[in-house]
Amino acid sequence: MAAPLTIALDAMGGDFGPEVIVPAADLCFRRHADIAYLLFGDERKILPVLEQHPELMERARIMHTEKAVAMDAAPSQALREGRRDSSMWNAIESVKSGKSDVVVSAGNTGALMAMSKLCLKTMPDIERPAIAAVWPTVNGRCIVLDVGANVGASARQLSDFAFMGAAMARALFHIDRPAVSLLNIGVEEIKGLREVKNAHRWLADSDLSIDYRGFVEGDRIGHDAADVIVTEGFSGNIALKTAEGTARQFAKELRSALSSSLLTRMGALLARSAFEKIKTKMDPNEQNGGVFLGLNGIVIKSHGGADAKGFASAIETGYNMARGRLVAHIKEDLEKFHVSLDATDVLQNGS
Amino acid sequence: MAAPLTIALDAMGGDFGPEVIVPAADLCFRRHADIAYLLFGDERKILPVLEQHPELMERARIMHTEKAVAMDAAPSQALREGRRDSSMWNAIESVKSGKSDVVVSAGNTGALMAMSKLCLKTMPDIERPAIAAVWPTVNGRCIVLDVGANVGASARQLSDFAFMGAAMARALFHIDRPAVSLLNIGVEEIKGLREVKNAHRWLADSDLSIDYRGFVEGDRIGHDAADVIVTEGFSGNIALKTAEGTARQFAKELRSALSSSLLTRMGALLARSAFEKIKTKMDPNEQNGGVFLGLNGIVIKSHGGADAKGFASAIETGYNMARGRLVAHIKEDLEKFHVSLDATDVLQNGS
Repeated sequence: MAAPLTIALDAMGGDFGPEVIVPAADLCFRRHADIAYLLFGDERKILPVLEQHPELMERARIMHTEKAVAMDAAPSQALREGRRDSSMWNAIESVKSGKSDVVVSAGNTGALMAMSKLCLKTMPDIERPAIAAVWPTVNGRCIVLDVGANVGASARQLSDFAFMGAAMARALFHIDRPAVSLLNIGVEEIKGLREVKNAHRWLADSDLSIDYRGFVEGDRIGHDAADVIVTEGFSGNIALKTAEGTARQFAKELRSALSSSLLTRMGALLARSAFEKIKTKMDPNEQNGGVFLGLNGIVIKSHGGADAKGFASAIETGYNMARGRLVAHIKEDLEKFHVSLDATDVLQNGS
Repeated sequence: MAAPLTIALDAMGGDFGPEVIVPAADLCFRRHADIAYLLFGDERKILPVLEQHPELMERARIMHTEKAVAMDAAPSQALREGRRDSSMWNAIESVKSGKSDVVVSAGNTGALMAMSKLCLKTMPDIERPAIAAVWPTVNGRCIVLDVGANVGASARQLSDFAFMGAAMARALFHIDRPAVSLLNIGVEEIKGLREVKNAHRWLADSDLSIDYRGFVEGDRIGHDAADVIVTEGFSGNIALKTAEGTARQFAKELRSALSSSLLTRMGALLARSAFEKIKTKMDPNEQNGGVFLGLNGIVIKSHGGADAKGFASAIETGYNMARGRLVAHIKEDLEKFHVSLDATDVLQNGS
C-alpha cells in the first residue's frame, strides 16, 4: 500500500461544523484506509463528535484553534482577523508546511480563496487561481472551470485553465488525453470574444496531451461534449448555478405533477426506485467539491450546506487530486505550454 | 373588437418551411380571430398547404418571393444575396412600411438580426438590439435578456435592457410594475463587473415604473426571482442554453430510470399524465419566440426546429407584443430614462 495521505479538514467550516465534518471524515476513511486526518478547530466541539467514531480516532489528530472564520465575513475581514490562528488558515498552512497533502473546507468561499492565495501563492506565471467544478453528465461527469474565481479571462488564462482542467481530469477520471472544449455562444452573427477565439487557436495548435474539440454551447455541457469545459468565471458561475436551479426546478415540477392525483401518486410509489436513482444522479451533493487550481497546493471547497455524504464526496475529490499528484502535473504542463507560447512568439501578438 | 392585427410570416424560414408555418398560423388564428396574415415565400410551396386550411385562406395573403435565406448562410452573405427579394427581407420590410404590425421568422438568427437592423434601424440612442427569451419558472414565466445579440454590455446598455424587458413584461404578463433583477455572481470576493455595478446603481435610483430587486444568481432565474432578468448576451446565451440542456438531461435520466424495471415501467404508465404535464411545462417549444428589442418594429425569432405548436407560440408572442404597443412603450421609457441620466450627469462618469 502507498504511504498514507494526510488530509487537513477545516472542521469549523460550513453551516454545521464538526457535526457534519467528522462523520464525513469517517465515511471517506471507510472507503480509503490510507487516509490520516488533521482536524483544525475548537477541540471542545470536535472531540465529542470524534469520540463517536472510535476507528477514526486512531487516524485523526485534532489541531486546536480558538478562532473560526464566519460564513458571512468579507475576505479582507477574514484575513485581518483570522490569519495565523483560525481553523481555515491553519488548515491551509499545514499544506504549505508539508504536514498535509490537501485541505478541504466548507467555509466562506471568498475567505478560503483569499487565504489560499496569500498562504500557498499561485504557481509561476499564474495570475489568479481558477475554481473547477465537477458536473454530472448523461454518461458520467465533466469538469467545468472557471466557475467564479475570475471575472473575465485573457486568452492565455483560458488556455491555462484548459491545461489545469485536463490535469485534473487525468487525476479524477484516470484518462490520458482528456477531451477539452471552450464554452462559446453560437449565434452566427457573433463570432465570440476575441479572447475565446485566440485561446481556440492556441489550443488547436498545442502539442500537449489534450484532445481539443473546439467550441461548445451551454446545452452540450451535460451531454458529454468533453471531459473539460473551459470558460471565464462570470459565465461559468452563471452556467453552474443555472444548471443547479434548473435541476431543482425540474424536480419540484415533477413532485408537484406526481402528487396531483391518486393515479399519479400510485405510479410514483411503484416507480420510487427510479426517482431515488435520478435524485442521486442530479444531486449537487454527489459531485461536491470545487477545486482551486493554479496554487502551490490543493484546496477543495465544499458546499457550505453539504451533509456528511456531500462533504465526504469533497474529501474524496481531494484524496484523488493528491493521489494523482495534481500540483506537480499542472506545473509541468503549464511550463511546457508557456515555453511553446514563448517560442512561437504568440505572446507578443495575442491578447 | 379592436382593428385586426396584421402579422407577417417568413413562410420559408426554419427547418420545415410552409409545412409547419401555415398550420401554426391556423392554430394561432383559432385563438385570436382578430389576426390577418401576410405569408412571404414561394407561392408554389405555400398554396398547397394553405388550401388545407379553408378558414385561414380568407385571412392570409401570399406575398410571393423567389428567394429564401439559407439556414446556414453567413449574415453578410444573406444580406448580399437576399436583400430586397427574399421572404425574410420582404417580411421585415412589411413592418417598416406599415403593411404589418409584427414579423415572425424561424429562419437563420444571424441573418434575421442583420436584416432587421438594416431595415428597421435601432431606436434613438440604442446601439444594438437585444434578444429577449421567455423562460418557464416554477410559478409562471420570466423574461431574460440579452440572450445572444451582444457580447458584453455597458452599464447604460444593461439599463436599457432592463427598461426594454420591463416594457415587454407589461405587454406579455399584463403587469404594471414588473420586478427586475440583474444577473450577477455571488462569490464574496468578487464584487461583480463594474458595468453590472453601475447599472445596479442606476436602476435602484430610477423613478421609472419598475420594481428593481437588485442582483440575482443563476439558480434563481427559474424560481420566480423577478419578471425580468438582465445580463449581457454572452452569459445570457450560456444561461439559456445551459438551462435547456439541463432540462433535456433530466428528462433523459428520468426516462432511463423509469424503464429500468417492470415495476418502474408500471409506475410510469400509471403516472403518465404527470410526465405529460411536466413535459409541456419544461418544453422550450411552449415558450417559443425570442423577441428582438430596441428596433423600430417588432421582430420575433422562433426556434428553427419548432413544430406547428411551437411556431404558433412564437406568433402568439408577436401578437401580444403588437397588441401591447411594445415599440411605442419602449420608446417612451427609454427617452425618460436617458433624460434622467443626462440630467444627473451620470453619463459623464458612468461606464
